[in-house]
Amino acid sequence: MIVEANTVKFDSIKLDSGATLAPVEIAYESYGRLNAAKSNAILVLHAFSGDAHAAGISHDGGKPGWWDNMIGPGKAFDTNKYFVFCTNVLGGCRGTTGPSSINPVTAAPYAMSFPVITIGDMVRLQRMLVDHFGIPKLLAVAGGSMGGMQALEWAVSYPDRVVTSLPIASTVRHSAQQIAFNEVGRQAIMADPDWNGGNYYDSKPPARGLAVARMVGHITYMSDDSMREKFGRRLRDKEEFGFGFDVDFEVESYLRYRGSQFVNRFDANSYLYITKAMDYFDLAAGDRPLAAVLGAASARFLVISFSSDWLYPSYQSQEIVRALRSMNRDVAYVELEANYGHDSFLVDVAEQANLVRGFLASTFERVA
Amino acid sequence: MIVEANTVKFDSIKLDSGATLAPVEIAYESYGRLNAAKSNAILVLHAFSGDAHAAGISHDGGKPGWWDNMIGPGKAFDTNKYFVFCTNVLGGCRGTTGPSSINPVTAAPYAMSFPVITIGDMVRLQRMLVDHFGIPKLLAVAGGSMGGMQALEWAVSYPDRVVTSLPIASTVRHSAQQIAFNEVGRQAIMADPDWNGGNYYDSKPPARGLAVARMVGHITYMSDDSMREKFGRRLRDKEEFGFGFDVDFEVESYLRYRGSQFVNRFDANSYLYITKAMDYFDLAAGDRPLAAVLGAASARFLVISFSSDWLYPSYQSQEIVRALRSMNRDVAYVELEANYGHDSFLVDVAEQANLVRGFLASTFERVA
Repeated sequence: MIVEANTVKFDSIKLDSGATLAPVEIAYESYGRLNAAKSNAILVLHAFSGDAHAAGISHDGGKPGWWDNMIGPGKAFDTNKYFVFCTNVLGGCRGTTGPSSINPVTAAPYAMSFPVITIGDMVRLQRMLVDHFGIPKLLAVAGGSMGGMQALEWAVSYPDRVVTSLPIASTVRHSAQQIAFNEVGRQAIMADPDWNGGNYYDSKPPARGLAVARMVGHITYMSDDSMREKFGRRLRDKEEFGFGFDVDFEVESYLRYRGSQFVNRFDANSYLYITKAMDYFDLAAGDRPLAAVLGAASARFLVISFSSDWLYPSYQSQEIVRALRSMNRDVAYVELEANYGHDSFLVDVAEQANLVRGFLASTFERVA
Repeated sequence: MIVEANTVKFDSIKLDSGATLAPVEIAYESYGRLNAAKSNAILVLHAFSGDAHAAGISHDGGKPGWWDNMIGPGKAFDTNKYFVFCTNVLGGCRGTTGPSSINPVTAAPYAMSFPVITIGDMVRLQRMLVDHFGIPKLLAVAGGSMGGMQALEWAVSYPDRVVTSLPIASTVRHSAQQIAFNEVGRQAIMADPDWNGGNYYDSKPPARGLAVARMVGHITYMSDDSMREKFGRRLRDKEEFGFGFDVDFEVESYLRYRGSQFVNRFDANSYLYITKAMDYFDLAAGDRPLAAVLGAASARFLVISFSSDWLYPSYQSQEIVRALRSMNRDVAYVELEANYGHDSFLVDVAEQANLVRGFLASTFERVA
């Protein structure tokens, strides 16, 4: 399945900050076919560093999508039955308008003049695409981590447009610890002189700062256990300790490699804007209790968390479930035993796939 | 109790790497009096970013010592009974020879020409000071985190010089995750152009990189819970969200402040050398099982861990305890319920103080 991203352009979008962005483009990929009733559409929502390439093999890079083990013919998101699509988020750097896009007013990249965006803004732009497709109601909105935040925002902001919502390894708001890890990444980028106040598009990007930010991220995505299994204290290409400051341990080599690779595919300013959107996200901001906010949703929910995920711990998913239950909303919850930490929703998917397949099928029977 | 650091100079020290460092100075503070039998000496061992100022009020800065709540008249390490002293570690930047010291051969700071050091080297230099004092046997070696590594190394390397060993919130070796967090800190420093290959002593230090490294450290020293209690999602000096990239949340403000403060008291090259020493540390390196290595110790052990410490989790302390028990060694172990994460050994000390007081008293009665 060779896939290619498409782009749709809209005249403008009004943002939560009050600013207007004009024009705005949204990149997406799709898999499977929309049925005549347009009742089989599933919007898959990517995590922080993901993009629209969720499944199949990309026509340019030849890389599989980030959820290719979940999306495809006969898979959990079965493209023989469903029309599955995924968009790059607003503020991103993979086809959708973001800080690296050209500001038509100045004919230069927005850089840090890009307006601050929110999870609500990302979802609003997705809704414009859904309208463009003429889809009255999404069979499902589903995603892990920041994708789960969007799945929650969809269910609350557009209750009549969502049949089911699947927030996975996610939360209704970042804790101080989650904000702190994001802040370290932002500081690492902004400390790099090459960041230059965000104006690096005609010179070199802040590669060292972005790499350090990514290294922190990778540690938080894995579990203590999975790092031990993958690396232990194995030495890198050495017979014995050669005391020094080159790479000693395999885990160091891995982190440096992942950090340096990230620079080739991700924009540092997008890193700043998207992590801020995650930190700002608070489904129950203001005086309304979470239960009242989630009570506005009419979707069926499937909430999934992973036992070894210490970045988005299960208690955050359970908070969602308790609030929904207290409002008599239809919610299924499973904490899956998995060893891969936060990455589990991407990696260790056998049980997750079964859960999602069954949940979607039972709903689709009723709707179709 | 106003205190002042002293320094002792030795001709040279032979290091684990094979290199010789000459001369070598060691800074220490002491509290209480050595008795005539020299049987009441306790060596307290600091953690990564600590120094010799463990107790009392410093004569220059007026700051209390890092374990002042544990050391003093009537406290757990009771200076009415014991002679307590603490040294700055080899490789440090607070009086003991380290990369910022002048290399007599070049009359310039060692910088990255400083030899690589190990926890074993730190302990060897401490033993030279103990010999200098004429102390035949230390009543106790005690410390948290990297201090605990030294307490273990003392008990194994110099079994006839140690009556009791108190490794607290520590480990016999760093896990891949612990190495990974240290590596991020090192990369943040080395990515700062001001680091300049370690040669910054006649210009400005890599302040931004060192601050980012320290921010990562602070997150790992706290628990998810204690960060929530301390900061939650409180906004910094704002009535409401003013979307932007200045400081929004109190936790961001705290981390930036702690990061920038650290630069005033810590040398970036010492950061590199000391974290490497921690990562290299492996009490059971080579083919010998841990039990055999720890079996060489003759000390009584008190091992303490903290329930919310996710950086040095309790399983690492329990590994020490199991190995000692399997060799019929005298070991007491307590996992304390505490909310402050790894910082608990510095902060939440009521129960810890009682444990240490009782353990020391029961041993001292037998010895004295």
